[in-house]
Amino acid sequence: MRALNVAIIGGGTVGCGVYQALQRNGTLMAARIGTALKVRHVVVRKKRKRRSVAIPSEVLTTDWESAIRDPEVQIVVELIGGTTTARRVVETALRLKKPVITANKALLSAHGKSLFGLAARHQVGLYYEASVAGGIPIIKALRESLVGNRFTQIYGILNGTCNYILTRMESGGEPFDEVLLDAQRRGYAEAEASLDIDGLDAMHKAGLIASIAHGFWVPPRAIHVEGIGGISVLDIEFAEKLGYRIRLLATICPCGERSSVSASKPRIQVSVCPTLIPKSHVLASVNGVFNAVYVNGDVVGETLFYGQGAGQDATASAVLSDVADAALDLASSSPARVAPFQPYASGSDVIPWKEVVSEYYMRLSVVDKPGTMAQIATVLAEEGIGISSIVQPEGHEGGIGPLILMIHDATTGIIQHATKRISRLKVVKGKPQLIRVEHFH
Amino acid sequence: MRALNVAIIGGGTVGCGVYQALQRNGTLMAARIGTALKVRHVVVRKKRKRRSVAIPSEVLTTDWESAIRDPEVQIVVELIGGTTTARRVVETALRLKKPVITANKALLSAHGKSLFGLAARHQVGLYYEASVAGGIPIIKALRESLVGNRFTQIYGILNGTCNYILTRMESGGEPFDEVLLDAQRRGYAEAEASLDIDGLDAMHKAGLIASIAHGFWVPPRAIHVEGIGGISVLDIEFAEKLGYRIRLLATICPCGERSSVSASKPRIQVSVCPTLIPKSHVLASVNGVFNAVYVNGDVVGETLFYGQGAGQDATASAVLSDVADAALDLASSSPARVAPFQPYASGSDVIPWKEVVSEYYMRLSVVDKPGTMAQIATVLAEEGIGISSIVQPEGHEGGIGPLILMIHDATTGIIQHATKRISRLKVVKGKPQLIRVEHFH
Repeated sequence: MRALNVAIIGGGTVGCGVYQALQRNGTLMAARIGTALKVRHVVVRKKRKRRSVAIPSEVLTTDWESAIRDPEVQIVVELIGGTTTARRVVETALRLKKPVITANKALLSAHGKSLFGLAARHQVGLYYEASVAGGIPIIKALRESLVGNRFTQIYGILNGTCNYILTRMESGGEPFDEVLLDAQRRGYAEAEASLDIDGLDAMHKAGLIASIAHGFWVPPRAIHVEGIGGISVLDIEFAEKLGYRIRLLATICPCGERSSVSASKPRIQVSVCPTLIPKSHVLASVNGVFNAVYVNGDVVGETLFYGQGAGQDATASAVLSDVADAALDLASSSPARVAPFQPYASGSDVIPWKEVVSEYYMRLSVVDKPGTMAQIATVLAEEGIGISSIVQPEGHEGGIGPLILMIHDATTGIIQHATKRISRLKVVKGKPQLIRVEHFH
Repeated sequence: MRALNVAIIGGGTVGCGVYQALQRNGTLMAARIGTALKVRHVVVRKKRKRRSVAIPSEVLTTDWESAIRDPEVQIVVELIGGTTTARRVVETALRLKKPVITANKALLSAHGKSLFGLAARHQVGLYYEASVAGGIPIIKALRESLVGNRFTQIYGILNGTCNYILTRMESGGEPFDEVLLDAQRRGYAEAEASLDIDGLDAMHKAGLIASIAHGFWVPPRAIHVEGIGGISVLDIEFAEKLGYRIRLLATICPCGERSSVSASKPRIQVSVCPTLIPKSHVLASVNGVFNAVYVNGDVVGETLFYGQGAGQDATASAVLSDVADAALDLASSSPARVAPFQPYASGSDVIPWKEVVSEYYMRLSVVDKPGTMAQIATVLAEEGIGISSIVQPEGHEGGIGPLILMIHDATTGIIQHATKRISRLKVVKGKPQLIRVEHFH
């Protein structure tokens, strides 16, 4: 049987996971793909360190450059994270025409366009299934399995930490800060959690999904992002009463525009924000650290892909599938059989957030006295915004109480403007809460 | 841009769906894969016939052999169904080294082993994503995306007609016969529905999934199959009360054996039968015509793939993805990059049904008098079978009423023997109902 040598750059959680999985299932994989995979180098910062898996010392090295340049190495796996050394690793390997597998969404988000170009110029593969929702093979699904489809809707729950926190707040009624602390203690959230809870991790993934699905490069700055830090248990409870759950939802849709806008230049909505989802929708049942991507294609109809989004093993599984693809491509002498990114729709663009049309949930703290509702309703009427339902719990007569307005489809810019006006009314106390509502129509 | 010509053999529902989808999205697909796909022939029985899509008369032909032999044709799509002409179509194309796409699970189930061998000998691709749950790219997921995994559990809801009927019985309380008639009127079930409701369609799919996942050919005769015709509304109602739903479940697991059995020869359980599923499990939420496949891999953990299993468009989407794969393989001169079937575990075998260990739901009609329970319990005790719970609804004193027993893990052969003994007791009237219970442990 032919054999290929792999250099794993990075001996952290995922690096150890990949090494371990190859030790366990390498023989099985070899039988399946007809090629044996041997780990020749694992590049680490310190050779002497306690690791979750025992790696022979002759495999360990601290010199990534020599590991990549080793003429016996045919496949390079970048798992160090970050965007500086990782970038040099990937570029060095691609220039040597060695296929690269990466799980680094931050790197691709920041430098994907140039790295994809480099891979194309050198006619070499760049594989990144592990960079988006490790346990869900969504990259291959979009690029290969659903290649005959126009993607009319893609919605994703793409960050396990946020989903775990929201689910815990929902089931236990505990406030955000407490759940976050507990999640950090349990290892479900990083000590430095902002990348997750501010929505940036989900943004990186949404950008990659959007780029692949719609054929033009979607840079992070084009994506509207809101984190979950502002979501209170009160919102989760009101949402529940109204028939919704709150999830950090990535939306990637050629939708959300007034139909009057010219269709000559296709525009796509790409956003990541807390969203009210009807309880009956399949995405509302995605709980805990799990991820899911709901894809509606104009030929295939509704589909859902569900699995763990992160973690050592789910990510290792995705890396192994990419290693197998690289091995098959090398073995069949078709090093760039599927281009890592095909920019076929360069005339397309992302809809500016203010122009996106959506429904909204608005929660206000109001002084409960005659005329309050009239003042708020007048502002909304003046802005041309319709109200689909109002909830004002009893028991606050004369005091300050919550008022929830469910708002019809309107342009986000107009809603934001109206909200600002409403926040200035004397009968409104504190900052209004504004959360998107998605009905998946 | 390079172009490839396709011959579609079969102008029925799926054939028209593929033609239509290529008309609509062909340009998009070409941009994505870098190859234009042209339909050169659509082979039909009668050229003059009303079709759901207009096909130019110069494309229509009744001569499949000439269409395949046409030197301008590079890719052949077999969509005529059946196992006689379809077999000749596939064999003719493979012998000409032309890659074949098929949606024909019956053909692969009956002759897959020989067709896969033929494809391997001629070093040509044979693609069949559309043959198993069209809207769910499960073949590619198992063979490529999850290639680094040992599949510890695969459970599938693989027949939309059965799932539609069971869901309707569940929500409306209507009996099987009435729902089936209505499903036939609505076009959700064939006039000749036995292939679906007897579980044979799901069996074909389960056999293909099992073969791919475990690396040895699983012939239909090795698969235990029960249809849904014997499921009554009474069973669905009792299941509901006990916390379960009933689904026609395909089980593909290296499990269900007494641990004492030697592990020297790996054995897999492959079955299709109505099964009680805990309501909290994600598969219990799969309703209507939808299909789903739950896959647990030793590296990736839990995953779920959900979509429409059949129908013109979902199947067309799968055919298009295979056509794209064939085109990419041709373009990169790697005609058999992924072998259509890799028999790497030829020493494995399917566990005989009688040896499969499972939990069971048993519903009896019993004479409600002192001693009834004692007689039944004595038989079970003599056979070494434990009872985990008993439900006997009130209101049948002295008459005949239902008795439900939930039975602990036991070998199916022993359960069946005990059931036969119980059915012979004078206090037991009519045929006992025995349905599997799955807890996904």
